[in-house]
Order: sequence, then C-alpha cells, then structure tokens
Amino acid sequence: MNVTLPRIAITMGDPAGVGPELCLKLIEVSLVRDCCVPIIFGDVSVLSAVADRLSLSLPEIVNSVSSILAIDEPTIVDFELIKNVTPGVVNECTGRASYAYIEAGMTAALRNDVAALVTGPIHKEAFSLAGVFYPGHTEMLADKTGADRFCMMLTSKEITCSLVTAHVGLNEVAPLLSTQRILDAIELSNDAMRQIRGHDVRLTVCGLNPHAGECGLLGEHEEEQLIMPAIETARRKGISVSDPLSPDTAFLPSIRADTDCYICMYHDQGLIPLKALAFDTAVNVTLGLPIIRTSVDHGTALDIAWQGKAFVMSFVKAVQLATQLVQAGQ
Amino acid sequence: MNVTLPRIAITMGDPAGVGPELCLKLIEVSLVRDCCVPIIFGDVSVLSAVADRLSLSLPEIVNSVSSILAIDEPTIVDFELIKNVTPGVVNECTGRASYAYIEAGMTAALRNDVAALVTGPIHKEAFSLAGVFYPGHTEMLADKTGADRFCMMLTSKEITCSLVTAHVGLNEVAPLLSTQRILDAIELSNDAMRQIRGHDVRLTVCGLNPHAGECGLLGEHEEEQLIMPAIETARRKGISVSDPLSPDTAFLPSIRADTDCYICMYHDQGLIPLKALAFDTAVNVTLGLPIIRTSVDHGTALDIAWQGKAFVMSFVKAVQLATQLVQAGQ
Repeated sequence: MNVTLPRIAITMGDPAGVGPELCLKLIEVSLVRDCCVPIIFGDVSVLSAVADRLSLSLPEIVNSVSSILAIDEPTIVDFELIKNVTPGVVNECTGRASYAYIEAGMTAALRNDVAALVTGPIHKEAFSLAGVFYPGHTEMLADKTGADRFCMMLTSKEITCSLVTAHVGLNEVAPLLSTQRILDAIELSNDAMRQIRGHDVRLTVCGLNPHAGECGLLGEHEEEQLIMPAIETARRKGISVSDPLSPDTAFLPSIRADTDCYICMYHDQGLIPLKALAFDTAVNVTLGLPIIRTSVDHGTALDIAWQGKAFVMSFVKAVQLATQLVQAGQ
Repeated sequence: MNVTLPRIAITMGDPAGVGPELCLKLIEVSLVRDCCVPIIFGDVSVLSAVADRLSLSLPEIVNSVSSILAIDEPTIVDFELIKNVTPGVVNECTGRASYAYIEAGMTAALRNDVAALVTGPIHKEAFSLAGVFYPGHTEMLADKTGADRFCMMLTSKEITCSLVTAHVGLNEVAPLLSTQRILDAIELSNDAMRQIRGHDVRLTVCGLNPHAGECGLLGEHEEEQLIMPAIETARRKGISVSDPLSPDTAFLPSIRADTDCYICMYHDQGLIPLKALAFDTAVNVTLGLPIIRTSVDHGTALDIAWQGKAFVMSFVKAVQLATQLVQAGQ
C-alpha cells in the first residue's frame, strides 16, 4: 500500500438504506483503492450483517477516530451506535447515527486528518425523527463549517448543474433568489469547474420562469432584475457566462455541448435533466466549504436496501472526484 | 388527389418567425400530402417572399375562408394583413396577423369546415404588442371555445407530458394547483392517450416539490393534500395512475418505459425532460377543446427566421397526430 495516498472519510449514510452495502462494495473497487485510503465512518454491527448477507468482505476495524492518522489501508471506524436495524426501516436511531458519522467525518476533514469527505446517502425523515432539521448534507455542512456562501453542484461526464436553491419547496424558490446568491453560485461553479477541467470554462444560466420570463410576460421579471445583474457582475470579473436561457431549451444537445456547468435556479430544474441523462454516475459536490466534500447523487433507496442490488458507480465517481480535487488543491 | 382526405387548417404563425418557411416545407412532405389536405391560413405577401428567398414552391391561393369547402389540394388562404415585415423582427402588426390566422382556423374547425387545426409558432411579445394578452394558443383556444377544462399535452415517441399549469411564472404554480385541476389533467390525458395508443394506458404523476415533498418536509404538503386526492378519485374511475413521484427520478429510463404519459405540475417540469429527449419531434396537443388542435412544440426561432434552417419535423408530426385524432374520432 502506497502510504502517500490521501485518506478519505466515507460516511456510511443511513444504516437502513443502501449506504452500508455500497461502502463495502466501494472499498473492493480497484479504481478506489488505487487513488485513496478509504475510511468508512459507520457501524460494524451493520456492516458485518450486510457483509454476511451479501457475501462481502469486511476490512480492518478501529474503534476511534483518533486512530486514523496511522491508517494506510481500507478501514472501518466503528461508532457502535446501532444495535438493531431493519433494512428499509429508518427511525430516530438510524437518523442519529447517520448524523454522527457526518459530523465526525467533517471534523476529521477540518483537522486535515482526512483529505476529503465523501458521504453516503442519508434519509431526511430519519434526520427529522432524530431532531436534526437540516434538509440535507449541504446545508448541514455549510452551517457547521461556517461557510458564508455555498452551492450544491452535481457533475457527470454528460452534464454538470449547480443549484442556486436546493432543498426547499417550489413555492419558496422565487422568494429565496437574490442577485448575490446567483452570483455566488456562478463564482463557486466557475472556480470548481476550472479546477476540475484544468482550463477556462463556459457556464450556462437558466431563467427562473418558463421561456426565461419571455421579456417579463411570465413571472415577476426575475430574469431582468435578479439574474441578469449577477451575470453582468460575473462577466466583469472575467467569467464566461450566458444570458438567462429558457429552461426547456437550455438542455438541448447543442447547448450541452457548449456548456461546462449549468447554473440552475432550483433543485428540479437541474436534477431532472441531470438524472435523465446521467443517473448512477453523477457526483454531488458542495462548493464553498473549507473542506472537500463529495457525495453520491442518489438517496437511501430503502426498497432495495441490503439486497445487493444498488449500483456503486456514483459512489466510486464521488471518491474519484474528491481525490482529483485533493490533488488539484495541493 | 383523394377527396376523402381531411382538410386541416395550418396557421402560419408569426410572419417574422420560422412559421412561413415551415408551412411551405410542410406541404411538400409526402407524409403530409398523403394524410390530409393542408390549408395554410396566412399571408401570400410573406409566403411568396419566403418562397423566393428559399426557392420553395407556392401552392394554390384563395382569398377567402368561405372558399375552403371546395378545396381538395394544398392551398393558401390569403388574409392580406401584412405589407412589410422584416425577418426576425416582430411587432404589433405581426402579432395581430398571427392572432387572426388562429381565430379563423378555430372558427373553421368549430364549423367543421376543417377537421382539425394545426398551429405554427407565434411570438407572445408580438401578441402583447397587438393588445392580445393570452399567454399562448392553449389559453386562447380554451377561452374562445368556452372549454370548461383543458390541458396542454406534449407527445413524442420517447415521452409524453401533460401540464397541470403552463404559461405562468414559477411563483404562481403552487397557488394555481387544485385537486380538480390535477384530476382534469389526469382524465383528459387518459382519454387522449387511450385514443392515441388504442389501448389502456399508464400515467405517472410528478410531485410538485423536490423529492415529492419528502413526506411533507419540503413544501406545503401539496403532494398529500392536493395531488393524492386527485389520484385517488382517478383510480376510483378506473384510471391507472402512479402516486406522486419525486420529479428528479420520475424521468429515469426505467420509469419512462412504464409510462404512457406524465402528469406534470408546471411547464418546465415536463418540458425540460421532453425537449432534452425529443426536441424537434414532439407535438403539442390541447386536450379538452371542442376541436382537434395540435401544434409544433417550438417557438418562432427569430434568430434563424427565413433562412431555411428550421426543421419541419415537429410540424409534420403535428399534422400526422391531428389526422390520427380525426380518424380516431370518426
């Protein structure tokens, strides 16, 4: 084992979901083992039950995060938080455990004990049952690391989308939009994509309303009053960015070919085309944090938990991208 | 010429857009000439200028809608509304003319002088300049024909989507949703797709919010309070319809394969995946009208107007579907 490989914290996600089996599959993948030392933040009781059920191997085990500086091969850090869990059934306990894995992984990344954090899928209802009211990893990590601006980006070979608003009801999108928030997403995405691509990039901005408002006929002129000023400021800073395009034609193949990253005003504006075009291979990156954090782009898939049916490709891509960002930042 | 072919009114759309050249290309297509008698409602001054510029042929010309009962080959009804027009530049005059073509086509269809109405692309800013404040054909035709319920559906080989709300700002979507409106879209779509497919069909309903509200954590419980009651009523009427799905995974290939039509809560929820998957071949149908009406699924494309670059395939598909619906209704 090459000791110069970066250590990456991998959180197991909700114990009742597909996270545990994906973690065990992940560390068997040579693409992963060749680029990093994966350290699973999870529970051995769950991982060993899944390993038995699916005939997967368990790696080394340590009992404390304080041990990880000495680790140079795939390892589980056992949090011993779960006694009983039924696959597919989340509860307060699974929510609390999945929260603890993330918090510990984040802390390890902030201390540089690991080079990056890659997170497995959590279940927000379980979070809620555990009294944790963050709508997702992104908001939790931004809050806990004190990031003053942040942005959720999903990237794949086919398409990359950054979200100006993410886990909010559709009715809350327009009130949450501001020129500053749109500009933050543009700048953070430009920086990240330049790092990923290694050269200058081109961003395509979607309007908020059908037909990008059609000259103010649809919506409340958000395109002219909120989005366009952010674009103009970004252009003055040398960023290559489009006018606000009609969302329904922005994702046509001809425009995709000329776009490194889409700036999307709301969750489904970006995630509908992204998942239609690149399900199972997209990676979620949180931009603007003081740590490197990537994630799978899918949920806990409770209906197929612990059955060996979940695809590990998004998790593998998440680890690869995290490693790439570690190297780019060195 | 087979005199039993149905006569179809084809509106030219905005004179400054791609509509005129598409009309002339359309009537040259044998798939079109073999299934109907296309009658262009437009202006000869424009069509002859486009024909000269692009070396296209002009068909027969009549000067009054009252003549069309005698028509059995491709023909232009000349409205003589346009004197001067610059390609790509819409104004009050082009808006007024495009409105007049639609109104005349609709009237002809209501009188059964034509079997169906197929509309070319209009420009809503031109409509607005002409003092016409309908946001689109759909709303105009629903209002003028007194339809008490209606729905815009876009259909293609790859995917079909019906829209519960259409040409409204994103911020107006949630306030406009009602159980009755969702049920109308489900029932109208079920009827239309059964007619198109010739057998029972399966509808997939999208939630309004990210992750379909995630058990009420995102949004205002619209999925449980507005959408689900419509689904339950539809099921009691024997319609095969899904629960509200997370919009970002509803369009994955596995679900598309099992879906005849998606019920989408807003314009871009349906049109982003539809155009990403089936641009240039989708057809817009207005459900719930007392007439058969289909349309191209694209706009006026002012940037390429009169240049011979516009693809006629969506227009051809629109005529074919109109003819199919005429036959199914006989």
